Amino acid sequence: MRIAIYPGTFDPITNGHIDILERALKLFDRIIITVARNSAKSPLFSDQERLDLIKAVVRKYKNVEVDSFDGLLVSYARQKKATAIVRGLRAISDFEFELQMALMNRKLDDTFETVFLMPNAKYTYLNSSIVREIARLGGEVSDFVPPLVRVTLERKIQLSRSTSK
Amino acid sequence: MRIAIYPGTFDPITNGHIDILERALKLFDRIIITVARNSAKSPLFSDQERLDLIKAVVRKYKNVEVDSFDGLLVSYARQKKATAIVRGLRAISDFEFELQMALMNRKLDDTFETVFLMPNAKYTYLNSSIVREIARLGGEVSDFVPPLVRVTLERKIQLSRSTSK
Amino acid sequence: MRIAIYPGTFDPITNGHIDILERALKLFDRIIITVARNSAKSPLFSDQERLDLIKAVVRKYKNVEVDSFDGLLVSYARQKKATAIVRGLRAISDFEFELQMALMNRKLDDTFETVFLMPNAKYTYLNSSIVREIARLGGEVSDFVPPLVRVTLERKIQLSRSTSK
Amino acid sequence: MRIAIYPGTFDPITNGHIDILERALKLFDRIIITVARNSAKSPLFSDQERLDLIKAVVRKYKNVEVDSFDGLLVSYARQKKATAIVRGLRAISDFEFELQMALMNRKLDDTFETVFLMPNAKYTYLNSSIVREIARLGGEVSDFVPPLVRVTLERKIQLSRSTSK
Amino acid sequence: MRIAIYPGTFDPITNGHIDILERALKLFDRIIITVARNSAKSPLFSDQERLDLIKAVVRKYKNVEVDSFDGLLVSYARQKKATAIVRGLRAISDFEFELQMALMNRKLDDTFETVFLMPNAKYTYLNSSIVREIARLGGEVSDFVPPLVRVTLERKIQLSRSTSK
Amino acid sequence: MRIAIYPGTFDPITNGHIDILERALKLFDRIIITVARNSAKSPLFSDQERLDLIKAVVRKYKNVEVDSFDGLLVSYARQKKATAIVRGLRAISDFEFELQMALMNRKLDDTFETVFLMPNAKYTYLNSSIVREIARLGGEVSDFVPPLVRVTLERKIQLSRSTSK
Repeated sequence: MRIAIYPGTFDPITNGHIDILERALKLFDRIIITVARNSAKSPLFSDQERLDLIKAVVRKYKNVEVDSFDGLLVSYARQKKATAIVRGLRAISDFEFELQMALMNRKLDDTFETVFLMPNAKYTYLNSSIVREIARLGGEVSDFVPPLVRVTLERKIQLSRSTSK
Repeated sequence: MRIAIYPGTFDPITNGHIDILERALKLFDRIIITVARNSAKSPLFSDQERLDLIKAVVRKYKNVEVDSFDGLLVSYARQKKATAIVRGLRAISDFEFELQMALMNRKLDDTFETVFLMPNAKYTYLNSSIVREIARLGGEVSDFVPPLVRVTLERKIQLSRSTSK
Repeated sequence: MRIAIYPGTFDPITNGHIDILERALKLFDRIIITVARNSAKSPLFSDQERLDLIKAVVRKYKNVEVDSFDGLLVSYARQKKATAIVRGLRAISDFEFELQMALMNRKLDDTFETVFLMPNAKYTYLNSSIVREIARLGGEVSDFVPPLVRVTLERKIQLSRSTSK
Repeated sequence: MRIAIYPGTFDPITNGHIDILERALKLFDRIIITVARNSAKSPLFSDQERLDLIKAVVRKYKNVEVDSFDGLLVSYARQKKATAIVRGLRAISDFEFELQMALMNRKLDDTFETVFLMPNAKYTYLNSSIVREIARLGGEVSDFVPPLVRVTLERKIQLSRSTSK
Repeated sequence: MRIAIYPGTFDPITNGHIDILERALKLFDRIIITVARNSAKSPLFSDQERLDLIKAVVRKYKNVEVDSFDGLLVSYARQKKATAIVRGLRAISDFEFELQMALMNRKLDDTFETVFLMPNAKYTYLNSSIVREIARLGGEVSDFVPPLVRVTLERKIQLSRSTSK
Repeated sequence: MRIAIYPGTFDPITNGHIDILERALKLFDRIIITVARNSAKSPLFSDQERLDLIKAVVRKYKNVEVDSFDGLLVSYARQKKATAIVRGLRAISDFEFELQMALMNRKLDDTFETVFLMPNAKYTYLNSSIVREIARLGGEVSDFVPPLVRVTLERKIQLSRSTSK
């Protein structure tokens, strides 16, 4: 059985992530989509919120496990007996960063491969941070995230507004 | 009448911005140069200071309006009945980011075009943040910004120094 | 009246070109779409064939003139009293080449601007050479070019096959 | 059973190709390494020579089939019941070209994924054309290709020299 | 005598920096490796700690001076009678940023050159921030930094952990 | 004494090449500017013509030797007892290609460094092929090449025209 890890911040999960997940499911027997906890960045959604959103959104897929991890990705992948790490490949800056991470991960442990998949062209320039920004500015994000994520994101932003008053 | 929006942070306005503005004036009947208020970054100059600097610097141009906006750029552009959004195109990283923003804006509203103009080669690597950095380190910025901006920038930095003592 | 030149090899014209043309029509009063004759590359279609295809395909647009030119683009643009040169902006390699051409053109004549427009995301990676290649390999190009171009392209390729036998 | 196609010109096969092949073997049950016949470029080695070199070099791997194809890659992949197309990802220019090909292939047939793998860092800038160039100039290529390929390449180049005299 | 400045944040110095230093020593009579003090970023190591690490690590090289500077790099280079500024060249994003800095420095003072050197391929994607990140996550950094740096880095991170409890 | 090789096709030498040469002269005791003979490309100017143009143009510089070479650059550099190979760094595509060549050269012989210098911003997008193209189309190249090169280039192109009639 070939297991692949699909790691990320998922703050929040977008349609682009789901597109990559669906593609990865064709290639592997099991995908573990896993949230990087305690990453350096301060996320909009807490670890638990990000996990809950992913769980709700990927419930319909078979062979998908939702998890979170702390520490080095390679240690986590080893422990999960993964064959590969899945990453979506979008624009140039992504490409550079992804290659850097993949090469560093390989240096740390050369037993699994990083597999880059290409999202649908319409998601080429989509990422979580631009979705948060659009929501923050009052824009419509229903083309970019699943309905549940949209609702939760809008509520979150309203809340942070009333708090900051 | 064709109106174009030239949006930005303008923290502060540089000779590179003015170069793009002059080029845009050949293409459109009216240019609205507009400051993004309340953007995520914490600017060196306040919204009002950035507006005042732009106003003083572009006074000599006909058909230029100076304004500021909040919220989504596309909503603002729609309200201003703009035909296009003008952006300067510099280095690679710019290119990626600009394309991403343009594609997201188009997703949100496909009625106006983002028009990319190329600054004079001597401004290829100029941006507001590098100008602020040079001024902060005591360097000479008179090649990069109009005289009024230089004076205001130097005063601002001296002030922030005496405050932080 | 603001006139823009949309120059290219158009070997053959694709849906990506037409997408850029439609965007340019919103910005200018008149677009001259013009075929570079005698360019260094040896095109699949002759100058006349490329002109004829463009003419047939853009007939439905108002304010579009179809032409061809020889020699320097800047001399041609000057003679046509153009305000701008329109170019589509796709991937990175494009970006570099387009900037180089634009900077050289500006060196030769600084009276008009090169205006870069972004095609629809679905045309980001489309160009004439990949369309010719797909047709040559017997693939279906109806998503990439207008029906007339598809038919002409397939006939051309069949002809070149029977000739080379 | 998951089958992946590893297509290329392989003119000639290098250590970089073999590195990617070994990585792909961890991910799929069977890899078909397949030579693009009659491609537009005029290869140094004939279709048969390239096939023979690959066959000799990959003999030691289980689950590898060597083949060649004509026409569209997607038609070939469909006929072979492949799940994925494997491509190595090296420098930027590669990245652009590979993405373009992958997007066009997906347009033509969306049933299989293009999977990008990263070669060992030491092969980042290695490709067949630079190996041919070094051999042509009398350089040592034993770090870049398997011994049999080196010998065949050197013989080929000596032959072409004595012929051109 | 030709002197070159090798400036940086060195937070902390890595094997990649040392690789560049060794290459630069072949080209110049004297290298001044110099720490940018009071830079905008908040470093993990203090100015003094970064200086001490570099001093310990480069002790074995002749013709190397270790120093730190404040203010504009060009003013510092002029004062040190340097002929050149040395920079390592890694990935694309680096390239853009380095060119921008080099062009701005040249604008400010055109009497010395920025010389770009290429690190060993195995250091292509190595930088101080990724080393700090790996150490923070409990990973092994002995391939990336000298032993003394590794020990100091691990101690630093343990300390910051016990403090934050 | 530190010797650097400045290799190239120089078809023909441009102001951009001369700009790099002048910068390199500040860094090395002697520069050997050397024409790659019998390169794969078919140059407009013969080996002898390219050599003669360079010789005439660099006569005014001390410590410059003009030469040509065949075979591997690293073998030539070794024979000339060079410390470094000098290359100008322009746009992205350049960067990739130059890095590839530098890494391959290092693989073949690790005793000398490739030193990348940045041309004046106004030469960022200048290269020999664009100069030939402009001259071919009847454009003015006096901003891009020395007077002697301009005259020779124009004569060459007139000649090739009358021959092809």
